[in-house]
Amino acid sequence: MKVVDLYAENGFSEEKFRTFLVHDSPYFKILNFNFKAGQELPIHSHDIEGQVCIAVLEGEGEFLGEKGASIPAKTGSVLIANIAEPHGIRAKTDMRVLVTIAPPI
Amino acid sequence: MKVVDLYAENGFSEEKFRTFLVHDSPYFKILNFNFKAGQELPIHSHDIEGQVCIAVLEGEGEFLGEKGASIPAKTGSVLIANIAEPHGIRAKTDMRVLVTIAPPI
Repeated sequence: MKVVDLYAENGFSEEKFRTFLVHDSPYFKILNFNFKAGQELPIHSHDIEGQVCIAVLEGEGEFLGEKGASIPAKTGSVLIANIAEPHGIRAKTDMRVLVTIAPPI
Repeated sequence: MKVVDLYAENGFSEEKFRTFLVHDSPYFKILNFNFKAGQELPIHSHDIEGQVCIAVLEGEGEFLGEKGASIPAKTGSVLIANIAEPHGIRAKTDMRVLVTIAPPI
């Protein structure tokens, strides 16, 4: 059992969104991404089995999907997608998200 | 791909913490629990393989562990435990948490 304080462990950078590996196990991989306003995780996909969950802890922005789809995202918004489906995030304000991938990749 | 707004989907109840099933798939099960101040998920465990992640979206309280362990929890705190390890939550203020279980149970 371990407890991690994401606010203490991960900050923000003007250069690129900051990634913090929270946990990696045979069951899932958990990451925290912090975006400054305007930063993004470009839309992408991996041709493998599994699903990804992206939960917004703080801030506002949009989830990106295929064919230019944009879905508003804010604190408490949760995206679930197959890893093989195109997905991404763009931050409108500074934004903290928690990403869970199962099985881990 | 689906997007869920936890703040719109799940509220609070004076009687018992409120549970909302966000997602259930062969890869993971994702739940949102909302606790009023003072409510708790009593310490428990299941004798099975897998791990659980509990992320605090809002509020303050404590994570509960075996032998009376209590670890402060607040927005951005993340607990990772084997499902077989005793774990629980107690809310000091109103509290929203996201629970991910892999593989799903």
